[in-house]
Amino acid sequence: MNNRFLKACRREPVDCTPVWFMRQAGRYMQEYQAVRAKHSILDVCKTPELAAQVTLQPIDRFPLDAAIIFADILLPLEPMGIPFSFEEGEGPVIHRPIRDREGIDRLRVTDGDELHYVYDAIQQARRALAGRVPLIGFAGAPFTLASYAIEGGGSRNYVATKQLMYGEPESWHCLMDKLARMVTGYLRRQIKAGAQAIQVFDSWVGCLSPNDYAEYVLPHMQVIFEGLMREGVPLIHFGTGTGALLGLMRKAGGDVIGVDWRMQLDDAWDRVGHDVAVQGNLDPVVLFGPRHEIERRVEDILRRAAGRPGHIFNLGHGILPNTPVESVAAAVDMVHKLSQR
Amino acid sequence: MNNRFLKACRREPVDCTPVWFMRQAGRYMQEYQAVRAKHSILDVCKTPELAAQVTLQPIDRFPLDAAIIFADILLPLEPMGIPFSFEEGEGPVIHRPIRDREGIDRLRVTDGDELHYVYDAIQQARRALAGRVPLIGFAGAPFTLASYAIEGGGSRNYVATKQLMYGEPESWHCLMDKLARMVTGYLRRQIKAGAQAIQVFDSWVGCLSPNDYAEYVLPHMQVIFEGLMREGVPLIHFGTGTGALLGLMRKAGGDVIGVDWRMQLDDAWDRVGHDVAVQGNLDPVVLFGPRHEIERRVEDILRRAAGRPGHIFNLGHGILPNTPVESVAAAVDMVHKLSQR
Repeated sequence: MNNRFLKACRREPVDCTPVWFMRQAGRYMQEYQAVRAKHSILDVCKTPELAAQVTLQPIDRFPLDAAIIFADILLPLEPMGIPFSFEEGEGPVIHRPIRDREGIDRLRVTDGDELHYVYDAIQQARRALAGRVPLIGFAGAPFTLASYAIEGGGSRNYVATKQLMYGEPESWHCLMDKLARMVTGYLRRQIKAGAQAIQVFDSWVGCLSPNDYAEYVLPHMQVIFEGLMREGVPLIHFGTGTGALLGLMRKAGGDVIGVDWRMQLDDAWDRVGHDVAVQGNLDPVVLFGPRHEIERRVEDILRRAAGRPGHIFNLGHGILPNTPVESVAAAVDMVHKLSQR
Repeated sequence: MNNRFLKACRREPVDCTPVWFMRQAGRYMQEYQAVRAKHSILDVCKTPELAAQVTLQPIDRFPLDAAIIFADILLPLEPMGIPFSFEEGEGPVIHRPIRDREGIDRLRVTDGDELHYVYDAIQQARRALAGRVPLIGFAGAPFTLASYAIEGGGSRNYVATKQLMYGEPESWHCLMDKLARMVTGYLRRQIKAGAQAIQVFDSWVGCLSPNDYAEYVLPHMQVIFEGLMREGVPLIHFGTGTGALLGLMRKAGGDVIGVDWRMQLDDAWDRVGHDVAVQGNLDPVVLFGPRHEIERRVEDILRRAAGRPGHIFNLGHGILPNTPVESVAAAVDMVHKLSQR
């Protein structure tokens, strides 16, 4: 098996820097579009054969060093009692946003059985991968899930989320506690099903001040990372816009800290400490640029990683829908060639 | 005159910390809504009597330490040949987005005469203020203006903007140079008309990596700050999401560096250096919270400023539309009371 990715997560030396991309199974690929032409996102998530098939599409096409199971960060909301759907061009829409203590008290924390389709997809993807590359499982982090559940979808200013946080801190912590416990169980089941690493996506946590992160988010992230620590797989802790939160995120947990493009990789690594691995940090929009600009930036990131064990190359956030597929292929090759030890 | 604000810009000791808020003349005030019920945003901008009237509304209501002229950051685009309008609930819409070299070559850099209504508004606001507090003039920064001109409005990922930047760097620099020269002339005219300080809003620059900022933005910001340095009024350099850009922004120029809530004020000040002033940095959403939470956060910011001369209290970004007006009043009072020397 190509285990560069798992080695780098553990900060062991590798022959060249491993690379995978968030949303590497996505709309920029025709193969994916062909599946989506016939099935909705939620259909693909809930049909293990389709989820496994889509998971492998980028692995069959590019020499990536890890696969990530096709799923959506919001899936655990449904068994908790927060149904949602995807509206064309709008992203997720939560039908009855959570706004008060009553709504929070009604939420269920289940053993995650309802999400059996994700575990089945993981098993099928593992079989189909046949050891070629490791498979990553994932979930949304409590803050990011809470922001969707409260705002009813994506948000610009997170007013309702922060209003609950500031105005009803007890209710907030109750909601976060339920989300953290649900996510921990869900991720544990993913590991049991065969996920060889886990990424926790706190995609929108960068909207918080460091004080608010420390008070309203960090304790709940610790529940997740402490709960999974003994499972024996690497844990990746990801967020965007987290320049001033990195130290706190590291304290919250994770063997690998995800870094977006808004800071230099070496500065970020200095800030989280060299006793954890880092993942990142190419701006996804760079892949829309000419080849020499992609190369210049890949080189810069590798130079900043300085050949130190524990760097996983990735974008700073997911691949964007119209990204040229040849640029993705080129970037993967560049990372491998330019980082050869 | 209450000159706390100007003194703090120059890092001179003050009796208590000066405070003003971005968008302090805005939808959260009934007085403003009453004007807007009869006039569009652009009508208010282009009618000096109305712009001056609206500028004074928050000054008449709260003991703020500075007024900021009512205008829109996009106004200079119109004389350059980029017409725009405001669509209900959508923000600005640029009718023919700039996407190629031809479009950039067609753009005019004028002496700013077409924007006479802004200078008239400044003169009228100065007269109406009658020395009560200083008046701030402002403009959008080239990157932020370019992003609107290229994307055609607000943006999530700035794909078209960065595509031009990466793919046609010469065209990019030509566009930025034209914007920088236009903005410099426009701001110089504002100062001549009576603006006693200037804020340059690079609101969306936080979407860039430090490398990209240094290469594609910084030189053009230097043109503006060097061009205005000799005018003798304090220059405020503002952006959001700029945690990793602060050092470069400081290098680009400004007597005061604006800081958003995503970092701690003391960390930010350490990063820009104590030989410039700083402005910030309360999360605008905190004003939706209960009084004791507002106070806790105001106290924390003042504690981090440590009574060092050169702190201007502000939000990390503009006041949000539904902000409770009593919270705004309370925050102003807290800043003054809690910072008394």
